[in-house]
Amino acid sequence: MSTPLSIGLIGQKFMGRAHSNAWNQAPHFFDLPRVPRLELVSARNLRELKPFAERWGWARFSAEWRDIAEDETIELVDIGTPNDLHAEQAIAMLEAGKHVACEKPLAGTLEDARAMRAAAKKCKGQKTFVWFNYRRCPAVALAQQLVADGKIGEVQHVRASYLQDWAGPDVPLLWRFQKKHAGSGAHGDLNAHIVDMARFITGDEIKEINGAIAKTFVKERKRLDGKGKGRSTVDDAVLFLTTFKGGAIGSFEASRVAQGHQNRNTIELNGTKGSLKFDFEDMNLLWYYDGGDDPKTRGWQRIMCTAGEHHPYAGNWWPDAHVLGYEHGFVNMAADICKVLGGEQPVAALPDFEDAYQTQRVLEAALLAAKERCAIPMSQVK
Amino acid sequence: MSTPLSIGLIGQKFMGRAHSNAWNQAPHFFDLPRVPRLELVSARNLRELKPFAERWGWARFSAEWRDIAEDETIELVDIGTPNDLHAEQAIAMLEAGKHVACEKPLAGTLEDARAMRAAAKKCKGQKTFVWFNYRRCPAVALAQQLVADGKIGEVQHVRASYLQDWAGPDVPLLWRFQKKHAGSGAHGDLNAHIVDMARFITGDEIKEINGAIAKTFVKERKRLDGKGKGRSTVDDAVLFLTTFKGGAIGSFEASRVAQGHQNRNTIELNGTKGSLKFDFEDMNLLWYYDGGDDPKTRGWQRIMCTAGEHHPYAGNWWPDAHVLGYEHGFVNMAADICKVLGGEQPVAALPDFEDAYQTQRVLEAALLAAKERCAIPMSQVK
Amino acid sequence: MSTPLSIGLIGQKFMGRAHSNAWNQAPHFFDLPRVPRLELVSARNLRELKPFAERWGWARFSAEWRDIAEDETIELVDIGTPNDLHAEQAIAMLEAGKHVACEKPLAGTLEDARAMRAAAKKCKGQKTFVWFNYRRCPAVALAQQLVADGKIGEVQHVRASYLQDWAGPDVPLLWRFQKKHAGSGAHGDLNAHIVDMARFITGDEIKEINGAIAKTFVKERKRLDGKGKGRSTVDDAVLFLTTFKGGAIGSFEASRVAQGHQNRNTIELNGTKGSLKFDFEDMNLLWYYDGGDDPKTRGWQRIMCTAGEHHPYAGNWWPDAHVLGYEHGFVNMAADICKVLGGEQPVAALPDFEDAYQTQRVLEAALLAAKERCAIPMSQVK
Amino acid sequence: MSTPLSIGLIGQKFMGRAHSNAWNQAPHFFDLPRVPRLELVSARNLRELKPFAERWGWARFSAEWRDIAEDETIELVDIGTPNDLHAEQAIAMLEAGKHVACEKPLAGTLEDARAMRAAAKKCKGQKTFVWFNYRRCPAVALAQQLVADGKIGEVQHVRASYLQDWAGPDVPLLWRFQKKHAGSGAHGDLNAHIVDMARFITGDEIKEINGAIAKTFVKERKRLDGKGKGRSTVDDAVLFLTTFKGGAIGSFEASRVAQGHQNRNTIELNGTKGSLKFDFEDMNLLWYYDGGDDPKTRGWQRIMCTAGEHHPYAGNWWPDAHVLGYEHGFVNMAADICKVLGGEQPVAALPDFEDAYQTQRVLEAALLAAKERCAIPMSQVK
Repeated sequence: MSTPLSIGLIGQKFMGRAHSNAWNQAPHFFDLPRVPRLELVSARNLRELKPFAERWGWARFSAEWRDIAEDETIELVDIGTPNDLHAEQAIAMLEAGKHVACEKPLAGTLEDARAMRAAAKKCKGQKTFVWFNYRRCPAVALAQQLVADGKIGEVQHVRASYLQDWAGPDVPLLWRFQKKHAGSGAHGDLNAHIVDMARFITGDEIKEINGAIAKTFVKERKRLDGKGKGRSTVDDAVLFLTTFKGGAIGSFEASRVAQGHQNRNTIELNGTKGSLKFDFEDMNLLWYYDGGDDPKTRGWQRIMCTAGEHHPYAGNWWPDAHVLGYEHGFVNMAADICKVLGGEQPVAALPDFEDAYQTQRVLEAALLAAKERCAIPMSQVK
Repeated sequence: MSTPLSIGLIGQKFMGRAHSNAWNQAPHFFDLPRVPRLELVSARNLRELKPFAERWGWARFSAEWRDIAEDETIELVDIGTPNDLHAEQAIAMLEAGKHVACEKPLAGTLEDARAMRAAAKKCKGQKTFVWFNYRRCPAVALAQQLVADGKIGEVQHVRASYLQDWAGPDVPLLWRFQKKHAGSGAHGDLNAHIVDMARFITGDEIKEINGAIAKTFVKERKRLDGKGKGRSTVDDAVLFLTTFKGGAIGSFEASRVAQGHQNRNTIELNGTKGSLKFDFEDMNLLWYYDGGDDPKTRGWQRIMCTAGEHHPYAGNWWPDAHVLGYEHGFVNMAADICKVLGGEQPVAALPDFEDAYQTQRVLEAALLAAKERCAIPMSQVK
Repeated sequence: MSTPLSIGLIGQKFMGRAHSNAWNQAPHFFDLPRVPRLELVSARNLRELKPFAERWGWARFSAEWRDIAEDETIELVDIGTPNDLHAEQAIAMLEAGKHVACEKPLAGTLEDARAMRAAAKKCKGQKTFVWFNYRRCPAVALAQQLVADGKIGEVQHVRASYLQDWAGPDVPLLWRFQKKHAGSGAHGDLNAHIVDMARFITGDEIKEINGAIAKTFVKERKRLDGKGKGRSTVDDAVLFLTTFKGGAIGSFEASRVAQGHQNRNTIELNGTKGSLKFDFEDMNLLWYYDGGDDPKTRGWQRIMCTAGEHHPYAGNWWPDAHVLGYEHGFVNMAADICKVLGGEQPVAALPDFEDAYQTQRVLEAALLAAKERCAIPMSQVK
Repeated sequence: MSTPLSIGLIGQKFMGRAHSNAWNQAPHFFDLPRVPRLELVSARNLRELKPFAERWGWARFSAEWRDIAEDETIELVDIGTPNDLHAEQAIAMLEAGKHVACEKPLAGTLEDARAMRAAAKKCKGQKTFVWFNYRRCPAVALAQQLVADGKIGEVQHVRASYLQDWAGPDVPLLWRFQKKHAGSGAHGDLNAHIVDMARFITGDEIKEINGAIAKTFVKERKRLDGKGKGRSTVDDAVLFLTTFKGGAIGSFEASRVAQGHQNRNTIELNGTKGSLKFDFEDMNLLWYYDGGDDPKTRGWQRIMCTAGEHHPYAGNWWPDAHVLGYEHGFVNMAADICKVLGGEQPVAALPDFEDAYQTQRVLEAALLAAKERCAIPMSQVK
């Protein structure tokens, strides 16, 4: 009989909801050594928090996130707040002896990220996790396995982009357009995901940023208080080129104004022996090109990554081609966290603060390259 | 404050699991006038049932399904058993005054279906529902709206197929290959879905079966008891042609041996003004062709049916293009049932026993056409 | 040094143009044992014929097609006229000792087709050819090779359709809508192609028509002489189901009113070991599913059929993925005819009158099944 | 009656063949004010040249290209030789008073390109043309029209790549891998095309290169003379980021080692009102997203660019969706050149030496950015 894993959550917005669902669903579909217990949820708006807690089955709620730190029954704290709050909250929780699962990106600034990483290093052995959910799409996890198995040989090209189109000129000056809260725009929100995916799938690290563009197309937006317009202080789009330690070259692009793309998170890798392609808008598929196949029938193979015996996570869900959706990445991650905290292996490697800090360094280096208008070796960014 | 809706479930296999998930998830994502209470689950294998009940949060469990009929607290009974059990169970529940939600197809035989329909007609006003889950994919529900709005004009062609490939010669003689249990093979399992979808989307009824083929490719299969081989008594594939009352002509095909298709449930409609196409393997998309569009830019439009304000059910889930999966059709259906039992309108029309009986008649007529080797007017099948 | 192959052509419309282009282009891209010489073209409208002959390099022209029969220099006669003229012209040419290449379908009626086949049988050894051009798309020719090589095992399903949308109610009463000239509507025009393709790729013959629908949606059309409306005497769409001698079951559909499909000629085959799919609107691709592939990476393979060393005809054209178009099927066929008349093997088998007559029988049987509202064994149609 | 346009061609390899075909086919499909006359072809290998001239209908041939300059009957000289020969040949022809149509890129070096542009400026009014064939794919020409018509608003993103995979380590040290002959590798060969397409479709110019990578993955290749290995002195892949004068930001990538891509020439534009996408491997399609469309049915529209009355060049070819291939871009270009030299307007704008020189400057600036590891304003490259 498994001991429950008592969890505290901070945040009740988009990510609060996605994480609550993940903790609820994980034990429905996975046999877990530790079963999540939704103990305490915290958020500032109490009027909204009460029904939120009821809806998702949180046993208790509080307007004060420090209550979670002080609650001795809680083992794991899940942070789903805006980026500028991650550091303070995560460090406090680590100091209180909790495991921490923090929403991505690790932080709004590299300074914050560095402090979080330091706190994780000096804590008493607790685990840290960062919610890079796309690693746990079966297709992405399969891509990682195929690369590790040498199926595409040495990686030469990495081509990643994450395009959305919700941030046209009619969207007002939300906190997401303010640097002090968000750190950056499309960059931290979207490039964070694809840098993590690229690092995860290749198993390689970026050595250098070879050039970058950060662009704010919509320079002013309507203020939320109705008092005219205010400046957007974040990027709408960031592109950058990279060289990996292993010799591959890469391109990364994030945009919030790419008309026609609502959540187009894509990555392609070309290696000496073959290629792989993923597009989240058709997330159950992985495309594989085996350069060594019979040239008469060789071609990109459309792998429906839902075969229970053969594809990561697939066996826990439905029969073949009874497809999965967005939220399943989070459920798979929640299950992997429960496994790790119960002494088992996760299906796919879980990013910790150290790992997410490396992603954050890449993002920082890219912005620096855009600003300095030159190549930036990663060694320049600590 | 909503009154809970107390539910009893029969069955703990694939559908027992899908339905349990639906009842759990519906109140997480929908504001419901009646909130499901998972009260009592029944299935023959008690050893499996106990952990099943625990996993999915069923308050009580029993090896005897009649316990549900006798439990006065239960308002709605959900039937997820093999086809040959539907009639006995559903009729008993209706007689006990329960609402009934029955897995599709309505029954294994038309005779059973007729009895169920009669029981529904003479009961004291309870509601009946049949789990044709694909109606509640947002793309399918949107297709129905667009046809009803006249966007494609008068429907002329209906082209539906449901292809799977799991039933090769190595698969043993499961109950699914035995007529006495399953009623039919691919026909009742898969054609049932696409006949329902075609009737739902067009809002029209089939007037005649113009021809049909029923084929068993794998005539003998290994017996489960290891004693050699036994005959498969069901079809592996059934194709048929139809005429609709409104003048459209259609083709339907179901197969379990169509290599390369795991769950390829597709339907296309061509009307006088435009066309629509759906493929479950890319279930978040609906393809629309507007014949009246500017011919310079006219073409099939790839609608990502995830825009909260514009597409059925989408607003209850995630942001745009944060795609849904297989199970969401069931959750959407559970929510619609709760709405209807709470006096509200469902998002998309819910099939009752009368409606599902019409689908069953079509299936019967198709088999008759295959056997008689001639056209069969629907009026010939009662 | 090759002897020229002297050609006479009848017809200067769509097919006159496609064939003229094919005879011009074949020697540019193929090394041929006989090089086409465009000797004499005939058509009724002399005013149009003169510039046509000049444009395409025909040495002479005549308003009287019998001039070709009487011209002793001409070895091969190419017939590109409406269906009701094929028999008279082809038989005359065979009697005059010419080889004949006739546009498809072989004829407008089965009676005509039978007479043509008889004339071919009793002639003095000349060759006959029928312009089923799609056989010679590299992807279709490759499909035939893969089936013959056993790559998909025994064929179980054949699924073919040819959809167009040009024949809405605003199109006037052209000869194509008059049975006496066209024989039939979408059926002879489009089903002819896909029946030929199915027979070619499978290498099998249809044993029985299991049911059929022939439908005229637009019953009256504006007369070309402006005098009100006249009746369309042909089908707009024909669907039928078939059983093949080898045990496969099939469906065929042709329509001219399927909005959104301009030239959607598709065929799919599912066998015991794998599957193949072709769609002319993306004609350079063949999709292949190898059921025996590693299930971890197995999936439909997108074969770009343009690799010179590996794919039929590809080596005669451009580098890999420098894609081909519609007319290339005709050029490939012209080249194969020149090869055969020069004593060489064609790349893909060429249909003769006997072969095309078998296709015509299938078309006739399908119409009979639609009319009689029952299954029709092919043995019933002579 | 039109006066013939007498043409001389230099080169008999891939481009000699593509151009010969274009001059032959243009008058078959277009009504031209000047009809090409294939007068004189020149190439060094006389043994190959004779059959080449015969096959393609060149009236005369010569091993000495200067014979064309000295031939007074020739009006237009078509240059299809390696990049390092363009300048000498083109300048000689301009000085001899000929119109010149030169294969792309304009030259192997910017210095050569500059000299060619100067020669074009000071000649006696002859026309110059550069064979950027992809401009004349109907889908690309349509994209240009839609952008010019304001259909996608102000362009914000340009995303272009041209991927091939033929240059693996087994390919020997061809002239294409030697800088002195080729100028560069994938860059001049492939990026040249997509820079031209981007400039053509947007109607905008690049203001700055923001960063670049030039990479040679295969550093040594087998020498053709069998004497061991020699160094490849060109790039296998070049990526760069750009800013356009109008404010758009762009990325460009060319590779010859991207496994699975044989001729993947793609461009996408996102504007304030909509988006466009093109992929040469499915060249008859243009994808269009109209951001202003009804959000209920809005989506990427698959435009089959073959509608005679509506799409550029389509009316000269076949019925709708009777698709075109690679060579048609060349034929369309040959037709446009004949039109321009006959005093008519081309369907799509023709690039002259001045225009192609601007593309060359961009390529040069990109290489400079890669070498200098910093941003390069275009003003720095003359």
